[in-house]
Amino acid sequence: MHAISFIQDLAVIMLVAGVVTILFHRFKQPVVLGYIVAGFIIGPHTPPFGLIHDEDTIKTLAELGVIFLMFCLGLEFSLRKLFKVGATAFIAAFLEIVLMIWIGFEIGRWFGWSTMDSLFLGAILAISSTTIIVKALNDLKMKNERFAQLIFGVLIVEDILGIGIIALLSGIAVSGSVSSGEVFSTVGKLSLFMIVALVVGILLVPRLLAYVARFESNEMLLITVLGLCFGFCLLVVKLEYSMVLGAFLIGAIMAESRQLVKIERLIEPVRDLFSAIFFVAIGMMIDPLVLVEYAWPIVVITIAVVLGKMLSCGMGAFIAGNDGRTSLRVGMGLSQIGEFSFIIAALGMTLQVTSDFLYPVAVAVSAITTLLTPYLIRGADPLSLKLSKVVPQRLARVLSLYGEWLRSIQPHGEGALLASMIRRILLQVGVNLALVVAIFFSGGYFAARIGVYLGEWVSDVGQQKAMIWGAALLLSLPFLIAAYRKLKALSMLLAEMGVKPEMAGRHTQRVRRVIAEVIPLLSLLVIFLLLSALSASILPTSELLVLIVVVAAVVAALLWRWLIRVHTRMQVALLETLENHQENHH
Amino acid sequence: MHAISFIQDLAVIMLVAGVVTILFHRFKQPVVLGYIVAGFIIGPHTPPFGLIHDEDTIKTLAELGVIFLMFCLGLEFSLRKLFKVGATAFIAAFLEIVLMIWIGFEIGRWFGWSTMDSLFLGAILAISSTTIIVKALNDLKMKNERFAQLIFGVLIVEDILGIGIIALLSGIAVSGSVSSGEVFSTVGKLSLFMIVALVVGILLVPRLLAYVARFESNEMLLITVLGLCFGFCLLVVKLEYSMVLGAFLIGAIMAESRQLVKIERLIEPVRDLFSAIFFVAIGMMIDPLVLVEYAWPIVVITIAVVLGKMLSCGMGAFIAGNDGRTSLRVGMGLSQIGEFSFIIAALGMTLQVTSDFLYPVAVAVSAITTLLTPYLIRGADPLSLKLSKVVPQRLARVLSLYGEWLRSIQPHGEGALLASMIRRILLQVGVNLALVVAIFFSGGYFAARIGVYLGEWVSDVGQQKAMIWGAALLLSLPFLIAAYRKLKALSMLLAEMGVKPEMAGRHTQRVRRVIAEVIPLLSLLVIFLLLSALSASILPTSELLVLIVVVAAVVAALLWRWLIRVHTRMQVALLETLENHQENHH
Repeated sequence: MHAISFIQDLAVIMLVAGVVTILFHRFKQPVVLGYIVAGFIIGPHTPPFGLIHDEDTIKTLAELGVIFLMFCLGLEFSLRKLFKVGATAFIAAFLEIVLMIWIGFEIGRWFGWSTMDSLFLGAILAISSTTIIVKALNDLKMKNERFAQLIFGVLIVEDILGIGIIALLSGIAVSGSVSSGEVFSTVGKLSLFMIVALVVGILLVPRLLAYVARFESNEMLLITVLGLCFGFCLLVVKLEYSMVLGAFLIGAIMAESRQLVKIERLIEPVRDLFSAIFFVAIGMMIDPLVLVEYAWPIVVITIAVVLGKMLSCGMGAFIAGNDGRTSLRVGMGLSQIGEFSFIIAALGMTLQVTSDFLYPVAVAVSAITTLLTPYLIRGADPLSLKLSKVVPQRLARVLSLYGEWLRSIQPHGEGALLASMIRRILLQVGVNLALVVAIFFSGGYFAARIGVYLGEWVSDVGQQKAMIWGAALLLSLPFLIAAYRKLKALSMLLAEMGVKPEMAGRHTQRVRRVIAEVIPLLSLLVIFLLLSALSASILPTSELLVLIVVVAAVVAALLWRWLIRVHTRMQVALLETLENHQENHH
Repeated sequence: MHAISFIQDLAVIMLVAGVVTILFHRFKQPVVLGYIVAGFIIGPHTPPFGLIHDEDTIKTLAELGVIFLMFCLGLEFSLRKLFKVGATAFIAAFLEIVLMIWIGFEIGRWFGWSTMDSLFLGAILAISSTTIIVKALNDLKMKNERFAQLIFGVLIVEDILGIGIIALLSGIAVSGSVSSGEVFSTVGKLSLFMIVALVVGILLVPRLLAYVARFESNEMLLITVLGLCFGFCLLVVKLEYSMVLGAFLIGAIMAESRQLVKIERLIEPVRDLFSAIFFVAIGMMIDPLVLVEYAWPIVVITIAVVLGKMLSCGMGAFIAGNDGRTSLRVGMGLSQIGEFSFIIAALGMTLQVTSDFLYPVAVAVSAITTLLTPYLIRGADPLSLKLSKVVPQRLARVLSLYGEWLRSIQPHGEGALLASMIRRILLQVGVNLALVVAIFFSGGYFAARIGVYLGEWVSDVGQQKAMIWGAALLLSLPFLIAAYRKLKALSMLLAEMGVKPEMAGRHTQRVRRVIAEVIPLLSLLVIFLLLSALSASILPTSELLVLIVVVAAVVAALLWRWLIRVHTRMQVALLETLENHQENHH
């Protein structure tokens, strides 16, 4: 009977995993390593053989493990946190990822591996392990120190960039080539999708969850959360992105819900169950012969990971203005690879573009660097002391001067306020435009299908296109008007600052007004041209186009106030969700 | 890709289940029915077709749902509760099950169904649904009334009897025939296995869980619990019992752990996830054509369930001494079938002994009776009022006299105390003997395998048998001695009561002493003969047997105190677990 052999597999996995993790916990090693070792013991490459009958079902459940892992990562991620992380996180994460991908790629090429293997190796090395770091800092009781906070910031940025890497790799693996144009378009589409998903998701999902939570049934809340999670993953897969991205995004959306704490409590056991299966499944794939055969690459890659991450993250932290000691601690804390690497390695295997040895090598490097992590974190302080003695006095002074210089050029007082205002306006404009672009994109995407329905009334394809394009423009009006108003505010601000009375004399007011009017209109024109280019497939003929734009302009003029009110209401709803959630958390 | 179609299946299941259950909850219907309807919608027999790609994997996960359902039923069950339920529960549950199996069987025969179908139909109708009743009583806010407490008692006894029915049915289905000898032996072996599993389990499992809980890691506790659960299920399957039994037993064992509350919290989401899949999978199997074709049997069986359970449980409650109104309320509360029926129907399908129509019929009857449950509970009071007016005065007086008579013959004061003492001693003797029997059984079971090892030193099969039998006897010594001592205490009690000075005159003391000595020795002799019969396969020749018994007697005499101490320590450990748990709960 199928079910019994499956239960037997689960029993073996859980029993061995239980025993090994208890042992690992006793010897103060991470539970994750215990799972991998358990999988190694159970696996087909080591005795006792034949413990697992139905590897396919186990692998399917392991996929669920990935989804739940990423979903929970998303739940812990939050837009608010992302807005709060400082320059350190962005600079360090960016430097780390670029450098590590390059190092990984070069190492792969040096060993004579294929381009795809080398590229995936780079991606595998790029991202550090949240799980391992949190565990290690917890154990060392350093979670509240400044460098730990910096590390958490880096990890948040890494998550987002990692999601981008996965999307990029999927695209590259399918097309088989790396062209900068394609990378640009992939990143663009991905950012667009993420912004739209987050805005729409945060408008809808927390409201739905609040509705379900009113029934006070854990069961219904769980089923709803799982339905949304799998449903969104499915949608994302249909759009040809990775499921991992979907799980993370829907997690990030639910992170803005008032029910976050309850959802985390409900989803945690489910995640633990499936992620245990995932890590055990990873261990099962390890063939000791492969490890022996690739011992040399493993050693080289391990050293590269430790030194590369130490350097890149440390340098990033230093460039962002931290002192040498903190920078070193940040760098050494991030010196390992973990679950993200497994997910990327699994992606390569699923897409069948990487060689079989890459997965075990990644697991081995992850295991070694995981074991090293606590020692590296503890060793950072002594090392920085030693370094400060070895470094020549002059260099040390130059380095410390850099920090002072950096602090001196940062905007203070009014300047800082202005900078933050400008950032905020640009963000709002960006989000609104992203929504507009998304509307036109969907119009193009569904044009053929909509055309079939329209075909019953309008037979001419040109007129169909015009109707779709016009509808998209009408739908976009609230966002376009909002973007226009924000841009106008920005131009006034810039005009106020840029055009000083000393320069323009008595024309000051007039020049300012002209600038404040011209810039937004020019920007709208640029946006309009951009939209036309992006929606080329449904762009109607120029006569129809002019007609549509005129109609839209009339509608905009007539319904100006109403459109503004619609937009404001949406914006308020969005901000309310974000702020409600904050209240809930503090 | 396999994984994506699987995720799609899950997404469809969770989304549809989520929407339908929210609707059902709005209209105050049980969530379980919502799942079944969701499955019906998704299923292959109703449009939209083709929503589910990988039915096999879903069915495998549904099996996990059964395991988790029974495991949680076990967690909520507790030996303590079983000891506390009164005569009402035992009588009502027993009457209900016997009567319903008979009614079901007769209905099946009447419709010309096969013997096996009729038998399974009887079993399907035998047991009421804990889930539905708890939900209905909760909704009606009647949970704390006396009749509700009686119903919960009946449900507990039903669980145990239901487990027995499942074990019996598996045996009958495999052998294809019903012989009373076989039923007796199956029930005997099953009881033996349950007693041994509970004693050994309660000695070991709560200690292990307490050890793991010290690490304060939810993840490790969950993995340990799951490992034990699946591992025990596997053991039970190897012993050719149903997995359902294993899940229930290990749940009942863990119910005695101090970590019960935490375990329930951790396992609940996992159960909700998989049981949702289970109920949806049930719905998926419903073919509307079958329902139309079998509309007539469904109506008949539904009426039989409602009337049969009302009568049998109500009568049981009345016989046990409750008034008419309470009895009617108990009977009408239990008038439905639910999850146990699905499990039994699924068992028939898995063993391939029942026809395809039985499952949908069971589901339909369950759905209808579930919908009726709240109305029946609410209708019990008005009905009893009406009945009391209709029933002739004389009959009413006779009925109320019965209750008074019953209360008058119940033991009071010293008598009640004595009865409870005797019950307690008999229970202890029973448990000890069960352990002894289990040791000899395992000796016989493993004789061949042990023989292989022994073969290296002792080549003679007769001597091997003698060694195994002797070892079993030595292992049993602590339990035999304990049983002997308990029996002696019992005989003294009985002698004190039975031999009054009025009868035996000045011989009183002597007669009492003789009785107190002779009864336990006679009992031991009976036990010994029973053991010999049960362990016939490894019984050595009579010379060796005498030798072994003499050696055992010498050992017993020499180590008497030590053996008693060993047994006491085990007993204390067992009772400590039971009582610790109680402290923990109050």
